[in-house]
Amino acid sequence: MKISVYIGKSLDGFIARNDGNIDWLVRFENDEIARSYTEFIGRIDAMVIGRGTFEKVLSFPSWPYERPVFVLSTSIKKVPDVVAGKVTIISMAPKEVLHYLSKKGFSNIYIDGGKVIQSFLREGYVDELIVTTVPSLIGKGISLFGDINTDIEFRHIKTDVYRNGLVKSQYEKK
Amino acid sequence: MKISVYIGKSLDGFIARNDGNIDWLVRFENDEIARSYTEFIGRIDAMVIGRGTFEKVLSFPSWPYERPVFVLSTSIKKVPDVVAGKVTIISMAPKEVLHYLSKKGFSNIYIDGGKVIQSFLREGYVDELIVTTVPSLIGKGISLFGDINTDIEFRHIKTDVYRNGLVKSQYEKK
Repeated sequence: MKISVYIGKSLDGFIARNDGNIDWLVRFENDEIARSYTEFIGRIDAMVIGRGTFEKVLSFPSWPYERPVFVLSTSIKKVPDVVAGKVTIISMAPKEVLHYLSKKGFSNIYIDGGKVIQSFLREGYVDELIVTTVPSLIGKGISLFGDINTDIEFRHIKTDVYRNGLVKSQYEKK
Repeated sequence: MKISVYIGKSLDGFIARNDGNIDWLVRFENDEIARSYTEFIGRIDAMVIGRGTFEKVLSFPSWPYERPVFVLSTSIKKVPDVVAGKVTIISMAPKEVLHYLSKKGFSNIYIDGGKVIQSFLREGYVDELIVTTVPSLIGKGISLFGDINTDIEFRHIKTDVYRNGLVKSQYEKK
């Protein structure tokens, strides 16, 4: 089983402003970035996201994910009708999530959302980290990385630089 | 006048552990990294560092800087004898520092240390940002970037990848 993070961050390490706004990030979307994401998603079986990301994505004009999505939440009790059949609400610790998804036959998992990423990282479950850095400081917001009690070493696999100044680095857990 | 930052950081954005330790960083030093630093220093006239960095560097076996060093401190009253003639203690806001160094004929300034970098960034005085990322999370420590109240946009100039997995990105203020 392989757990991947694929995310954009500001130069100062934020994945969103405090209100969830990603205006500073989306204005860098272009064909190169879209192609990179499509390539990545092509090798993913399932997604795990948190409640914050889920609610953000539900506000989009259409549901963007073509893979089964598992939402980690203790407060959401029912899947909204608009995403029935596409979303499963689960309430588990990272280790249990992995057992659960493995039993269901999923082996390439994309995890997204600040809290979800941090909880999986903290327990050493992130195998692949693909981070794209936008050339701006936004000063404050939701951090990609959180407090951990031990060093976690990665191996640099490759770095791609895009026309618009975004830098995507791919790492694998050592 | 050009103000440059040239610094190493962990993947999660720290420039040192909370006690100042940079063991996780120095173990990546090699000939490529040394050459990059030498090239950078070759175009620098003077350095501005904070008290924390100064005290750290004073503990090294020998004084590593060949350029005039200005230490921003309100508490240090006298230059230690070992660095007499190499170091000047100043106590000024970033704007005053720039006036002061400009009057002295310096035009390419390297600023170093978390608090100094943050105070210059916050006032928009950083023209060049060269950040080298180590492929490790260290979980906690002294942050490179701090709270700012406005976005600051940079232009990506180039990114170099080193044999040992370090990724150096160079940015200029827009």
